[in-house]
Amino acid sequence: MGKSDDYDDALERLQVLMVETQAWTIDKGRRTVIVFEGRDSAGKDGAIKRLTEYMSPRQTRVVALPKPSDHDLSQWYFQRYTPLLPAAGETVLFNRSWYNRAGVEPVMGFCTPEQHEQFLKDAPRFEHMLADDGIVLIKLWLDISKKEQAERLAARVEDPLKRFKVSSLDAEAQARWDAYTEARDRMLAETDHRYAPWTVVATDRKKQARLNIIRHILRTIGGPGAKAEAPDPDVVFPAAGNGGKLFR
Amino acid sequence: MGKSDDYDDALERLQVLMVETQAWTIDKGRRTVIVFEGRDSAGKDGAIKRLTEYMSPRQTRVVALPKPSDHDLSQWYFQRYTPLLPAAGETVLFNRSWYNRAGVEPVMGFCTPEQHEQFLKDAPRFEHMLADDGIVLIKLWLDISKKEQAERLAARVEDPLKRFKVSSLDAEAQARWDAYTEARDRMLAETDHRYAPWTVVATDRKKQARLNIIRHILRTIGGPGAKAEAPDPDVVFPAAGNGGKLFR
Amino acid sequence: MGKSDDYDDALERLQVLMVETQAWTIDKGRRTVIVFEGRDSAGKDGAIKRLTEYMSPRQTRVVALPKPSDHDLSQWYFQRYTPLLPAAGETVLFNRSWYNRAGVEPVMGFCTPEQHEQFLKDAPRFEHMLADDGIVLIKLWLDISKKEQAERLAARVEDPLKRFKVSSLDAEAQARWDAYTEARDRMLAETDHRYAPWTVVATDRKKQARLNIIRHILRTIGGPGAKAEAPDPDVVFPAAGNGGKLFR
Amino acid sequence: MGKSDDYDDALERLQVLMVETQAWTIDKGRRTVIVFEGRDSAGKDGAIKRLTEYMSPRQTRVVALPKPSDHDLSQWYFQRYTPLLPAAGETVLFNRSWYNRAGVEPVMGFCTPEQHEQFLKDAPRFEHMLADDGIVLIKLWLDISKKEQAERLAARVEDPLKRFKVSSLDAEAQARWDAYTEARDRMLAETDHRYAPWTVVATDRKKQARLNIIRHILRTIGGPGAKAEAPDPDVVFPAAGNGGKLFR
Repeated sequence: MGKSDDYDDALERLQVLMVETQAWTIDKGRRTVIVFEGRDSAGKDGAIKRLTEYMSPRQTRVVALPKPSDHDLSQWYFQRYTPLLPAAGETVLFNRSWYNRAGVEPVMGFCTPEQHEQFLKDAPRFEHMLADDGIVLIKLWLDISKKEQAERLAARVEDPLKRFKVSSLDAEAQARWDAYTEARDRMLAETDHRYAPWTVVATDRKKQARLNIIRHILRTIGGPGAKAEAPDPDVVFPAAGNGGKLFR
Repeated sequence: MGKSDDYDDALERLQVLMVETQAWTIDKGRRTVIVFEGRDSAGKDGAIKRLTEYMSPRQTRVVALPKPSDHDLSQWYFQRYTPLLPAAGETVLFNRSWYNRAGVEPVMGFCTPEQHEQFLKDAPRFEHMLADDGIVLIKLWLDISKKEQAERLAARVEDPLKRFKVSSLDAEAQARWDAYTEARDRMLAETDHRYAPWTVVATDRKKQARLNIIRHILRTIGGPGAKAEAPDPDVVFPAAGNGGKLFR
Repeated sequence: MGKSDDYDDALERLQVLMVETQAWTIDKGRRTVIVFEGRDSAGKDGAIKRLTEYMSPRQTRVVALPKPSDHDLSQWYFQRYTPLLPAAGETVLFNRSWYNRAGVEPVMGFCTPEQHEQFLKDAPRFEHMLADDGIVLIKLWLDISKKEQAERLAARVEDPLKRFKVSSLDAEAQARWDAYTEARDRMLAETDHRYAPWTVVATDRKKQARLNIIRHILRTIGGPGAKAEAPDPDVVFPAAGNGGKLFR
Repeated sequence: MGKSDDYDDALERLQVLMVETQAWTIDKGRRTVIVFEGRDSAGKDGAIKRLTEYMSPRQTRVVALPKPSDHDLSQWYFQRYTPLLPAAGETVLFNRSWYNRAGVEPVMGFCTPEQHEQFLKDAPRFEHMLADDGIVLIKLWLDISKKEQAERLAARVEDPLKRFKVSSLDAEAQARWDAYTEARDRMLAETDHRYAPWTVVATDRKKQARLNIIRHILRTIGGPGAKAEAPDPDVVFPAAGNGGKLFR
């Protein structure tokens, strides 16, 4: 039995546990929000796909909002997101989230520096309210190295199956690498708080990262998920005091 | 020319000024939220009707939400309200609002004491974010005396045109007068803050109250509205340091 | 007692009957759609205001849609309207409706001649389905003379309270009078069918027209409304075989 | 190279063609609706998953509505579905659709016989309007044999990954097999029309069925999809004049 079989077996065991854990959250009426953030090609789509593959379609919502319209932009910044928050028993996964305003928006000039600053103040307040309301908030930063990203973006362009993944912003991901790094560091520093801490996941090794992400989510949700083995601390670790592990 | 003509003339002058003021807010893209709170029959419907009579139907939204469903109740408390917040140029009037959780809900036992306490903490945080986002928030408490309320509720039952105003909760308004007073006092004390202060309006004299409400709103919005004469300080006054003017 | 008092008394009696009739439709779970169509300033807003003044806010919905967005325009034509159709016990009033595509759109060139033709075929099919589903459909054409319209549009411009009623299309109402007449005649001829017939109301005399509109609606809804006196047949009459009564 | 590799290769080639075809529909602004109907475990979920795996998340919508609420049930029958119809460039897949009223609802007694009859009249009229509006409608009946269904339902119960697929209605699928057959036959006979014909797919052999479904969809959409090889006529065939091929 080879490496790939090991991965498939491990993944399937975790997916079974996820099904069991979700049945428990539904039964208890627990509400869960999982935020997936990270640079382009860091592995958000792939991790979400494996995580949700066998989850209940009725109680699970994957949210990937399109670019805001002018009408959206004239409203309260969080207004696009609040209608999507979970009701009892629901799990909502945000594939990119309100944290656009701490990453792509300031880096690409889609918001003003003042809006960026305001957001860094508002996000913890907003999340604090959700947490006080009883919502479990899991925030993941998927961290990829510059070299790995370059390879994935190049491979994408060649792959006819990934046509809809290729975006006009891809070129900027490498060109503005340092600006994105700086934005990320501020975001992790200023929006990491005990009601909704950031967890960093190193994703250069995709399969390993996926298994570790699911392990972390299971253990954070709890219930049957508590039985999951601990994620590898070199792959999944708290943003605070991370000992310089982030890719540069 | 009698009293009623005076009222009609004054009202019309204020409505003209409201039209002019709204045209200015639309032009500037300003967003305005006006919260009308108060006991049953305190005059919320009547004031809103006069205020909005000639306002732009497209840029004005009057919100009177039905009782929350079980699904609503399992979500974040503010989730029912956020989709209704204004976009650029819009004025949104809440005929009762999130403050249900500081009034009818705790008094009638529709929420737990813990939810009541949590709400009193959350409301200022929520409003602080809206204000930081640039939304103008005007919060009005329409204050009626026990005797006047008793008369209005009794008259309502007799009036075939007010059939849809009569509610099963009307009887409780008088029976639980003191509990409502206590809830109001806590609400005014704990959710009055500089980003969104409470303004109290004495409404036993309906017509006078309506004129004063519109004057206060015009002056708070500003622009052409700044030309409105000041409301009578015995009728409209800040909740903080009100010198014991509230009805008991 | 003068003319105006007579009108006020008659209106109030009809409003009381409307309240009684709506209570009956709510109790029976009946669904009602009332379509108000007519040229600019024909009196749609005023009639709707009097009709709905005391109706149940929770069970009544007045719909006046903004201009469709490009996204709307790329969807099925009726898609904007269907989410607004009534649930059990609800009354929905359309202040202009899907019939835009038989009036302002072809006259002003906002749709193609093919879309106009298609609509004239689709509207009866669409309404037939609603009627088969048990929805009561009342379609009113408010008919104003060219001279009266000219006077009302001119008066509007002078009136600071009607600022939000004045539209850039007003000038075209008179300039394209004949084209609007032709569009109206085709609409009445091709979309009048037994599941949802058109009723024409002459509205040059506003107050008389309002009373007659409410009488017609009451009698068509039935229940307690059947007690309303018959509308004046010179003011309210079926579009089919109307003996040339329409204004030109 | 074994059978499974053949399937994987063929599937991938079709998925590449689907990506290319969707890019063409987006470019042309074409709107596509694909209805997946069939008994429990006939393979709807699996086919949709393979079909959509690489499609554009922004332009593709998979719709699987929950049980209607009482409020829904009091509205126009098609009202739940119309907001989900495609805008320009969108592809909408219904995993079960309005045809519930021709299958599970009459068989399980969730609608009256009159509602069932009315639906059989309305569905073609509704679809005719959509087709006239330019929407491409592809309706697929996934046909499974009684024996194969029994095996799949039994296997499902054992599989911890399929926990959320198991439903309280599963037991009825076999018990009421003949009633479902009868309902299917009436549906195919009465709602097959040239604006939106039914296509039947034999799904006892899952992988073969999936490939043939995608081929049929590609060729029906056209553009680059026209290059797809024709589906096997023993697997995919028109509902009308099918020569008795349906499973019993």
